[in-house]
Amino acid sequence: MRTAIHPDKDRGREVTSTEGQTSTVDVEEFHVYDTTLRDGAQQEGLSLSVQDKLAISRHLDELGVGFIEGGWPGAVPKDTEFFRRARHELQLTTATLAAFGATRKVGGRAADDELVRALVDAETPVVTLVAKSHVGHVERALRTTKAENLEMIRDTVSFLVGEGRRVFVDAEHFFDGYRLEPSYSFEVVRAAMEAGADVVVLCDTNGGMLPDDVHAAVASVAEATGARLGIHAHNDTGCAVANSLAAIDAGASHVQGTVNGTGERTGNADIMTVVANLELKRDRQVLPTGALTEMTRIAHAVSELTNIVPYSRQPYVGSSAFAHKAGLHASAIKVDPDLYQHTDPGQIGNDMRMLVSDMAGRASIELKGRELGFDLSNDRELVTRVTQRVKELEAAGYTFEAADASFELLLRQEAEGERTRFFDVESWRVITESRPGSEAVSEATVKLRAGGERAVVTGEGNGPVNALDHALRTAIGTLYPEIDKIELIDFRVRILDASHGTDAVTRVLVEMTDGARSWETVGVGANVIEASWEALVDGVTYGLLRQDVERVS
Amino acid sequence: MRTAIHPDKDRGREVTSTEGQTSTVDVEEFHVYDTTLRDGAQQEGLSLSVQDKLAISRHLDELGVGFIEGGWPGAVPKDTEFFRRARHELQLTTATLAAFGATRKVGGRAADDELVRALVDAETPVVTLVAKSHVGHVERALRTTKAENLEMIRDTVSFLVGEGRRVFVDAEHFFDGYRLEPSYSFEVVRAAMEAGADVVVLCDTNGGMLPDDVHAAVASVAEATGARLGIHAHNDTGCAVANSLAAIDAGASHVQGTVNGTGERTGNADIMTVVANLELKRDRQVLPTGALTEMTRIAHAVSELTNIVPYSRQPYVGSSAFAHKAGLHASAIKVDPDLYQHTDPGQIGNDMRMLVSDMAGRASIELKGRELGFDLSNDRELVTRVTQRVKELEAAGYTFEAADASFELLLRQEAEGERTRFFDVESWRVITESRPGSEAVSEATVKLRAGGERAVVTGEGNGPVNALDHALRTAIGTLYPEIDKIELIDFRVRILDASHGTDAVTRVLVEMTDGARSWETVGVGANVIEASWEALVDGVTYGLLRQDVERVS
Repeated sequence: MRTAIHPDKDRGREVTSTEGQTSTVDVEEFHVYDTTLRDGAQQEGLSLSVQDKLAISRHLDELGVGFIEGGWPGAVPKDTEFFRRARHELQLTTATLAAFGATRKVGGRAADDELVRALVDAETPVVTLVAKSHVGHVERALRTTKAENLEMIRDTVSFLVGEGRRVFVDAEHFFDGYRLEPSYSFEVVRAAMEAGADVVVLCDTNGGMLPDDVHAAVASVAEATGARLGIHAHNDTGCAVANSLAAIDAGASHVQGTVNGTGERTGNADIMTVVANLELKRDRQVLPTGALTEMTRIAHAVSELTNIVPYSRQPYVGSSAFAHKAGLHASAIKVDPDLYQHTDPGQIGNDMRMLVSDMAGRASIELKGRELGFDLSNDRELVTRVTQRVKELEAAGYTFEAADASFELLLRQEAEGERTRFFDVESWRVITESRPGSEAVSEATVKLRAGGERAVVTGEGNGPVNALDHALRTAIGTLYPEIDKIELIDFRVRILDASHGTDAVTRVLVEMTDGARSWETVGVGANVIEASWEALVDGVTYGLLRQDVERVS
Repeated sequence: MRTAIHPDKDRGREVTSTEGQTSTVDVEEFHVYDTTLRDGAQQEGLSLSVQDKLAISRHLDELGVGFIEGGWPGAVPKDTEFFRRARHELQLTTATLAAFGATRKVGGRAADDELVRALVDAETPVVTLVAKSHVGHVERALRTTKAENLEMIRDTVSFLVGEGRRVFVDAEHFFDGYRLEPSYSFEVVRAAMEAGADVVVLCDTNGGMLPDDVHAAVASVAEATGARLGIHAHNDTGCAVANSLAAIDAGASHVQGTVNGTGERTGNADIMTVVANLELKRDRQVLPTGALTEMTRIAHAVSELTNIVPYSRQPYVGSSAFAHKAGLHASAIKVDPDLYQHTDPGQIGNDMRMLVSDMAGRASIELKGRELGFDLSNDRELVTRVTQRVKELEAAGYTFEAADASFELLLRQEAEGERTRFFDVESWRVITESRPGSEAVSEATVKLRAGGERAVVTGEGNGPVNALDHALRTAIGTLYPEIDKIELIDFRVRILDASHGTDAVTRVLVEMTDGARSWETVGVGANVIEASWEALVDGVTYGLLRQDVERVS
């Protein structure tokens, strides 16, 4: 049975960029192949639902990758389900969906192999087959002969091509195998190509290669076989990106990677970094025009979906990637930002940030103020006061680097002579109780004054912070109905090392949103609830301030 | 005034390795130069006390680096203090201390320059001077002429050499400058060498280079000047490690980096990864014999001191670096672990780990059991039950990848038919209260049965979890005095995304120690206190189990 899928090899889709120009990128000339949903999902701590996978696919398509590897149908039930739902629920603009699977079982026939059938049933235009290319793996893990392994490749590739699929072959453990017995690794590439594979992807499965190794092997395979080659690198030597670039330099025209470099062990090549390097450092356009500026947003959105804390030091898209804190730099950056940035952060949708820290001088505080919309250049004394206050608070465990909203409240306090206050808290109390056979419940009582009235309000919640949040909202809701738009979306707790102070203190970061934008505040205290309350009150205060709420006192 | 420091350039110190052999590594032939304490401290969120710096120096010396850059005396008061205390408090075996500073001010004399004097006063054998080597920086940031910049380098280097110091020169923004005007960058290198500098370190200060760029520039500078060259790379293109290797390949014999790759923006080259690549992938010994196996321990110890959560995906030393979860791999790893590891993790003091996760098959559970000392190979049914239970719990938000102790309790529960219990909890309640003018206080009441007795105990604490911990300890302390040895050292809280379930749940990871080893447990619940309590009870139970405490019931 042939399916009705006829992959179009000469695609060059029209894409409208965010600037409104229309341009064409030939997604066939150079393959940007994403495997976040398959190899990326091997990362420790990562578990993706079908819903997550669908959402990530939409982001990947928006980024303009050529191919999305969705999973292993037949082997992983969730992946079978993903491909079933993708047929109806995914409308892709640039990307083509690929199903991942393995060559048929030893001694069988591809046409009868249950897992190979599942690949056909996934109904994707592309099938990517993993094949052994390392003699040791053929003989010790697969427990078969070199000849049978080649036959498994030929049989499976030609069967799938006969079913109307484009086939890519992932040559597993290729570089280790090439080192051991180069002639056999050439045979594997030839077997795949002769059976009809479009691309043979050389995989550094164990990730132990350095760029020189990769360059030499890819050049030699290209010369020996004439095949179209791809690269699949892992980061075990810290060189996944450089290895990918070395392979491309040696002739590979297909690169596999994952968003944010997720993956087993040290992860896969970060597709974001590879693509940004090609476009910005090598002037090679591989994404639709305008897509690059969406990169930072998409990287963070995928972090959210994968529920992995974004890595702040990630190249190009990390929150620290264009952050400066050295006093030396900060003063020079005021003169000429280009001298201190390897690229314009706006090109990947990121921003330059000045960090407020105890290493920062006055110049950093001034630049940070400017970033938040305050011109401090004419008030030397104010800058001195703020710098001093930041140093004191950071010594006590606060951090303003991740809490812009708390910093802005501090800045206003120093500028205006008093803290912005929409209400005055008198006291609060929260009780959490667990009784046999039922879930724990929390109940908070908040006493405060707002608009000349005293309020004593009790709120319940599924946790102490939640209960305090509810009580606070009720207490001020009549006076400030805008509070309804403000939502607490995250809080993070960190115990600061006891060696850093006389006693262990807790730092809480709270994130809130009004739907349009989000902001973070910080609270510090020996008591986690007290620190949470401080961050909560700051967060609500900042949110009301943002909405230009008039203070009633 | 000359100081009494006479640096010995022909050092080749005897070092006794952990295996007991004595071997010599020539720390002069190839410089491993660590700048964690200076450039590494530019990282967002990082602030090091003098005490931290002294402790990190001891770890670096143990790792066997040749040079430790301690900071910028004169410019940073904390760093002046560090060098003062280092003279009496640091006994270094392999490493030499270096003070970092800049060339003298425009138009002045090095001998009169306050900051240059501070470098002399730091009394280190080595001084590393940062010098401008990029025309744009000379003219726009420094606002002087190319000739005066060269004079500043000559004057400062020769003054310090006259004071008995070895001088290394960091040529700032070298690669960008070389691209703009190669002849001037050569002049800078020559000026430094002619004035007596030992090494000129080419810095990719903005981090925008790719390995090809670095290789070409280093080769060309080496040919044009004959100088001894070093490399200082940042990770803005994800290539800091590969760029360092490319420079070494092109002739550099001095590499700068930081432990765990900390540093401004995306960080510096990770000195651990660079060194492990040189030793394990290029057979080039650069550390004393036996030091490499201490690398993982030292990387984690420095993480603790810098109060930065270790990056699990870090090459070689990361907790995930040799972790496997794919069912496919797990079954093959049982056959032959070497097929699936790029190097033996024991060489860097790391371990292979099997991850328990919902992607794991029965093989992973079996291997994990073996790791914990349970032979499950003969009980297929038990493995099935445990696998099933892990899947259910992970779907509810638990994670066992970071909570081995909770996994072991689960395994015992399935094997023994009931949960290990040293006490039976009836109910608990915790109240946290904040009144005007005083710190918030928490008070917990725990009701439980242990050894046939019912206990109702109230404990106070500086936070709710602390109060519960105190109450629990009091309630069981008479029966199980071993509880005194068990200490809660960390807890981490994460709100799981609401999109991952019907309601937001909180996951708490608790770490405890008995002084000899530490263990982690996990708790999950809508209520953060309830989740904490679950992790707390598991942690205490596991701790008592470890100490072979006899259960009383």
